[in-house]
Amino acid sequence: MIFERQKSKIVSHLSYFIGSAGSAFVVDPTRDIQQYLELAKKHGIRIKYIFETHRNEDYIIGSLELAKNTGAEIFHGPWPTIKYGNVVEDGDEFTVGNLKVTALATPGHTPGCRSYTVTDMETGSRPVLVCTGDVLFIGDTGRTDFGGPENIKKWSRWMYESIQEKLLPLGDHVILCPAHGSGSVCGSRIASREYSTLGIEKIMNPQLAMNQDEFIKYKTAERHNYAPYFKRMEVLNVEGASEYGIGPIVNALSVNEFEDYINYGAIVVDTRPPPSFGSGYIKGSYNISIDRLSMAGWVLPYNELILLVLGNKAELNDTVTGLARIGYDNFAGYLTPSIVSWYLKAKPVERLGMLTTSELRARLEMEEWTVLDVRSAEEYEAGHIENSINIYVGTLPQHLTEIPKEKPIALICKSGTRSGFGCSILARLGVTNINNVMGGMTSWLAAGYPFIK
Amino acid sequence: MIFERQKSKIVSHLSYFIGSAGSAFVVDPTRDIQQYLELAKKHGIRIKYIFETHRNEDYIIGSLELAKNTGAEIFHGPWPTIKYGNVVEDGDEFTVGNLKVTALATPGHTPGCRSYTVTDMETGSRPVLVCTGDVLFIGDTGRTDFGGPENIKKWSRWMYESIQEKLLPLGDHVILCPAHGSGSVCGSRIASREYSTLGIEKIMNPQLAMNQDEFIKYKTAERHNYAPYFKRMEVLNVEGASEYGIGPIVNALSVNEFEDYINYGAIVVDTRPPPSFGSGYIKGSYNISIDRLSMAGWVLPYNELILLVLGNKAELNDTVTGLARIGYDNFAGYLTPSIVSWYLKAKPVERLGMLTTSELRARLEMEEWTVLDVRSAEEYEAGHIENSINIYVGTLPQHLTEIPKEKPIALICKSGTRSGFGCSILARLGVTNINNVMGGMTSWLAAGYPFIK
Amino acid sequence: MIFERQKSKIVSHLSYFIGSAGSAFVVDPTRDIQQYLELAKKHGIRIKYIFETHRNEDYIIGSLELAKNTGAEIFHGPWPTIKYGNVVEDGDEFTVGNLKVTALATPGHTPGCRSYTVTDMETGSRPVLVCTGDVLFIGDTGRTDFGGPENIKKWSRWMYESIQEKLLPLGDHVILCPAHGSGSVCGSRIASREYSTLGIEKIMNPQLAMNQDEFIKYKTAERHNYAPYFKRMEVLNVEGASEYGIGPIVNALSVNEFEDYINYGAIVVDTRPPPSFGSGYIKGSYNISIDRLSMAGWVLPYNELILLVLGNKAELNDTVTGLARIGYDNFAGYLTPSIVSWYLKAKPVERLGMLTTSELRARLEMEEWTVLDVRSAEEYEAGHIENSINIYVGTLPQHLTEIPKEKPIALICKSGTRSGFGCSILARLGVTNINNVMGGMTSWLAAGYPFIK
Amino acid sequence: MIFERQKSKIVSHLSYFIGSAGSAFVVDPTRDIQQYLELAKKHGIRIKYIFETHRNEDYIIGSLELAKNTGAEIFHGPWPTIKYGNVVEDGDEFTVGNLKVTALATPGHTPGCRSYTVTDMETGSRPVLVCTGDVLFIGDTGRTDFGGPENIKKWSRWMYESIQEKLLPLGDHVILCPAHGSGSVCGSRIASREYSTLGIEKIMNPQLAMNQDEFIKYKTAERHNYAPYFKRMEVLNVEGASEYGIGPIVNALSVNEFEDYINYGAIVVDTRPPPSFGSGYIKGSYNISIDRLSMAGWVLPYNELILLVLGNKAELNDTVTGLARIGYDNFAGYLTPSIVSWYLKAKPVERLGMLTTSELRARLEMEEWTVLDVRSAEEYEAGHIENSINIYVGTLPQHLTEIPKEKPIALICKSGTRSGFGCSILARLGVTNINNVMGGMTSWLAAGYPFIK
Repeated sequence: MIFERQKSKIVSHLSYFIGSAGSAFVVDPTRDIQQYLELAKKHGIRIKYIFETHRNEDYIIGSLELAKNTGAEIFHGPWPTIKYGNVVEDGDEFTVGNLKVTALATPGHTPGCRSYTVTDMETGSRPVLVCTGDVLFIGDTGRTDFGGPENIKKWSRWMYESIQEKLLPLGDHVILCPAHGSGSVCGSRIASREYSTLGIEKIMNPQLAMNQDEFIKYKTAERHNYAPYFKRMEVLNVEGASEYGIGPIVNALSVNEFEDYINYGAIVVDTRPPPSFGSGYIKGSYNISIDRLSMAGWVLPYNELILLVLGNKAELNDTVTGLARIGYDNFAGYLTPSIVSWYLKAKPVERLGMLTTSELRARLEMEEWTVLDVRSAEEYEAGHIENSINIYVGTLPQHLTEIPKEKPIALICKSGTRSGFGCSILARLGVTNINNVMGGMTSWLAAGYPFIK
Repeated sequence: MIFERQKSKIVSHLSYFIGSAGSAFVVDPTRDIQQYLELAKKHGIRIKYIFETHRNEDYIIGSLELAKNTGAEIFHGPWPTIKYGNVVEDGDEFTVGNLKVTALATPGHTPGCRSYTVTDMETGSRPVLVCTGDVLFIGDTGRTDFGGPENIKKWSRWMYESIQEKLLPLGDHVILCPAHGSGSVCGSRIASREYSTLGIEKIMNPQLAMNQDEFIKYKTAERHNYAPYFKRMEVLNVEGASEYGIGPIVNALSVNEFEDYINYGAIVVDTRPPPSFGSGYIKGSYNISIDRLSMAGWVLPYNELILLVLGNKAELNDTVTGLARIGYDNFAGYLTPSIVSWYLKAKPVERLGMLTTSELRARLEMEEWTVLDVRSAEEYEAGHIENSINIYVGTLPQHLTEIPKEKPIALICKSGTRSGFGCSILARLGVTNINNVMGGMTSWLAAGYPFIK
Repeated sequence: MIFERQKSKIVSHLSYFIGSAGSAFVVDPTRDIQQYLELAKKHGIRIKYIFETHRNEDYIIGSLELAKNTGAEIFHGPWPTIKYGNVVEDGDEFTVGNLKVTALATPGHTPGCRSYTVTDMETGSRPVLVCTGDVLFIGDTGRTDFGGPENIKKWSRWMYESIQEKLLPLGDHVILCPAHGSGSVCGSRIASREYSTLGIEKIMNPQLAMNQDEFIKYKTAERHNYAPYFKRMEVLNVEGASEYGIGPIVNALSVNEFEDYINYGAIVVDTRPPPSFGSGYIKGSYNISIDRLSMAGWVLPYNELILLVLGNKAELNDTVTGLARIGYDNFAGYLTPSIVSWYLKAKPVERLGMLTTSELRARLEMEEWTVLDVRSAEEYEAGHIENSINIYVGTLPQHLTEIPKEKPIALICKSGTRSGFGCSILARLGVTNINNVMGGMTSWLAAGYPFIK
Repeated sequence: MIFERQKSKIVSHLSYFIGSAGSAFVVDPTRDIQQYLELAKKHGIRIKYIFETHRNEDYIIGSLELAKNTGAEIFHGPWPTIKYGNVVEDGDEFTVGNLKVTALATPGHTPGCRSYTVTDMETGSRPVLVCTGDVLFIGDTGRTDFGGPENIKKWSRWMYESIQEKLLPLGDHVILCPAHGSGSVCGSRIASREYSTLGIEKIMNPQLAMNQDEFIKYKTAERHNYAPYFKRMEVLNVEGASEYGIGPIVNALSVNEFEDYINYGAIVVDTRPPPSFGSGYIKGSYNISIDRLSMAGWVLPYNELILLVLGNKAELNDTVTGLARIGYDNFAGYLTPSIVSWYLKAKPVERLGMLTTSELRARLEMEEWTVLDVRSAEEYEAGHIENSINIYVGTLPQHLTEIPKEKPIALICKSGTRSGFGCSILARLGVTNINNVMGGMTSWLAAGYPFIK
């Protein structure tokens, strides 16, 4: 049995390539399907099936293009009505070499969710692993809010039943293969443990110890953000996205070419760490760290050309692939070899303030400041600086009027990355006297400074 | 948690590199320790501990050299008295980043066997995986015959208790990390499944369903071979082997240089597939397929220079590392670029007969032949050709007088690889009229020809 | 200046990726254009131009698909009238970063051949390297016979003038970048030296020391083979071949699937070394060594499915890419994991005789044999076994009636590879009692056996 | 002929691995000899000889350790009296496969310099390439100042004769293989062209067009810095450095461990870009960009532990290897995963000022500033800001008293990297009000601001 787990940095997505005796299947392929074709070539094996666990909302799925390149058949659940592939029902079985794959209807995250168990027929008749999509994660369970407030209780109940009546009865021994790891927007408490079994989850995942009422109450109380780009992903994943091929080739641009594109309206995405960015950036840039690229989906329009400023040229391909996974394909190019070219040409740069938490504390005692906490509502409620305002970073443009602008502003998040992004959003909107708090609330708490819940 | 499983082709050995928060430990490192140092460099992590599950008998362990290079501490069980490292007792605990490692005394394979459980303290207090060494494999359990016939019952009982009372109680959810995979001499029934849990083993490993008496009876009836090289491994693994560094650099030799070494007494190991070998080989060569390199330990002396003829130059390093893992370090060189050089120089070659099973069957009906089955006694007993003689391939030199030499000889094994090795052994000893059966007993049975048990 | 030379195993083709300051050009890209896209991504550079030195006849050029993927402009000479790209005239100049590329009209190999000089404008105004296509090789010059016997003198004169009046005057210091290395059908004397300059060629390439009459006489006397697949390449390279994408994904086939395809008419290409092949092959197979894959173009039809038997699964991709470069795209699959599967299932195999040269000599003294020398006419004339017949391996099917079949046949070439191919061709045509001479004429001569010129 | 050019980032060193028919030689191996052993393994070839062009002063040579691992013989010139290997005289010849290597005495950079020509005997009797060490570079010639002012004229004359009478007569066609590329301290004008021939140099290297008097005058006028670490390299390269093995394994350190080492006296080297560094660094750190690691040799003591703060964890090994090449082996560890850990723990940070050139210009018009130009004397003389002070960055500690400290200080270099290093040196020495000029003099000139020569 060949088992390859493909991790993608952005959206912390996990897909699976599983094979046996000359055949294989892929679960939830991302758009950059070269990786699966390479695995097929490496193992000299045919991809026979593609299984989708659900209509994804946080990245573009690559099923159609992978099917076109391999002749594989696509299967997914019945909801929503996806315009390609086949619907698979609870209990449907598939043979892949010596493996038997069985579909399970596991609604909850969405009504049409499917899980897929894998049984190695050479060695027994009970499943050894299960791909659970966005229903059951390591340490967490999937969101149940995509049906809107009117459906959240029903969907949460479905999820409870799917987990307790369909998944856990498979046995403690079964290896768990979810669709996301730690860092995903699809589950805020996903553990950083990388390997788990249903039995490990029964012990360590507190949501599995709840009874039905507790679980529904818990899920209903969760507060998730809904990024604007989700809407676009949902449409593309129903209709089938355009082909990706080998992905965009992004041109190296000289300072003059780069400037021309800016004048033409292209938008700069600068992936450097916030302190580097803050020391000197090109006016109008978004500062989106490579580890948080999917945040782009909150603010970056789909109809504009994108220009890249990279912290490290070696990250070009990861950056491009990451943005392409959430649908950004129109790259004008990147500044070569780095932002230093811009400095060397004496082009104008902007700068942001940087504050350590001890500096912030000192300033707060002496002056009037606006502390703007850009974390999620859940994080804010768990502990924040007194008198701070909470606006989630992705929604800053919509809440611009709520921010007092006469006083200096200190943006804070957990560590400094999202607040760096927030600083760049505000600066782009013309706000001045913006400062990023290095180390964020983690540093604030480490220093023992006061906070309220 | 960083989890890297290192597979080594030869002896199907599995070692583990497991880390967390800047520290790591290695379980049962092989002699070519570069792989662990590279993992340490890749993850930017310090190897703090080396855990041995037992004194190995089938390969040279790399603990001492790895410790020397990293400052790691070595731990192993109390038996036999190993001349380096520290003894670890049942229940001893170690902290590695956020992980807790607990030693379990699990005698059976040897009296001093240790297993090591790993608990991720960030997420709970129960173990998530266990390294079981040669006690519990996927689909099999370890040999219990190394203490000799007088101890086999006692050691088998220990193993039963170790598995049933120490390992299985850890929980069905626990991921199983044994020291060998399919193909090892340390367990004849190891499954080719690569991932398992204690729960999966409870379902699929028939030996775990036996009661104590059944288990002891079963283990006592097992028949294993004891390769001569084991003795050498045991000594080296008690005393600590010589340093390996980056391993031998093996010289490319011209035909004349190669011939000079042969005349000087060096022994040729030819790793080509048996049909290629049989079509034209250098007199005196052993034909040892790269997939079965550890068979060399049956016949290859430790005090002679080794010459290599390769099927594929790209396999040079795997071949050298494989032989070095079982203690062969003295390489005179390899024939460059391939055996064709030998042919081009019109040097003398020997040839072996090849038979398909249909040809063998036809010959047996017409002539007197000696059919020599070189598989293990267990395999032979499960089904063989009538009137065939069974001598295990590794022991052919000691049983030479038992082989009738006046008739043509057909060597047969399961597929043709071991019989190819056997042909080369006999030819080297001066036997003539030797033929290799292509496809072996598998082909014979596929053709529906008669056999007896 | 970025300089990447891309070697392709098959047809010994060399293409070049040369760049500077964010832009690059490619000279003579092969069909598997992923390599250039990967270089563009690796260097973060835009491919601005594609230059063809001539309409190729021995492989499919990838210009159109590379242009489509990158937006690059294509340039080539005016002959023949290629249905894509632009015609470039002698002296046309292009700017690529800090480089200046200048086209030179260098007819001879064909009337429309172009060479391209590269000048690094940062460091001076004289060219530092020149891409010479099939006009000037390292140690040889290109064929001048593609215009037919009526044009060979004229084209040879053109070539003389191109070399002596256009290329050599560029200066001894200029680095030489030809389109083929040693082993190509485009020049029989290409040296195995990999790096050269025009000055080195003036010293070491004897054809550059000839005067015009000598050169024309020399070229006119050359004898080249014209493989049937050239015709197809020429058409595809005028019209633009179909897109290749990531290339064929070749399926792993079980023995039964493989047999089904054979029954359906698919043709087996077996890439094992001749001794392995001869020991047991599937009836009807062509034995084409991976190092000589382009020989397939002599016998393999373009309208049949191809089945592969590999010596080494690791060579699957090289084999597929190699065949695809000369237009073979229809792969039914390959036998997994190897020919041994076939043996294990007791499927019928054929066998060929093997002879060492000493055996051949002994047989010739005792019996009547047909010695069939399958090398080129030039090689044959330089020294062969008395009474041997010369038929070039690729043309065996057309000359079948000239081969005496009542006597045993020994096929011989230089080393045993082409004769192995020849054996498989004859066997497929029903000829029996075929033997391959191991080590070929090289071995015969090394043994000091008699030969005639 | 196998030709592998090994580039090393630090000190822009080039070494060569050249082989043929089973044997190879290495010219000027660096200390991390794994690369040559890997090449030997990859090509399946024996390293027979190691040739040193001269006693190096800017990096540790790996000859002794490479010889110990391979059995190769070492050869070098007679000056100084190196305590290992053999002296080679002008005209000495060596056979390596089909290659002939000939030593040439080419004094000038040092009295004992040797060049090595390579002739491919298969194709002719004239050399095809020459390894010239530090005598002739691409676009430049080597330093002649290591013998002190009293010898510079004599050594320059020797160099003139070596180039004009020994090297250039080899022929325009000869490929040039020097010991350094662009960026080396061994030649300030080395061109960024990567491939050259003696003929190309005759055209493009202005120093080759000078007559003897001009050349001596030119070389005598050159002004080079002599880094303190050179002295140590010279001693190690005469005596043979300690073994390097696989190089230091550098531990990942938590914030607390890192802080403990600082308190213990370890010195922090922070390789982030100056703007990142300036935004928040650990007190006492040196800011040494990865592209300029050898600058460490000016200030970093050899007897202290080194702590690393990395811009990118992927650069750990390059950083460690780079420092080790100039003799720094004592690494306490690196901060994991990055400086952000430090911020998160609310540990104290220092900050530096950043100025664009337009800001600098504006400030200079309004206030009294010290402009400290830390480039080399040669660069300074070619154009600098009026009233700026020139102290080479490496010598800042020795010239501390010359820097006015009552006014704010702006450090400037060519681009901002060396001035960032300078800022960190001054800050470490207690200087305050330090600012780094982004884009340096390049930006100043690009902006069209006034300068004087």
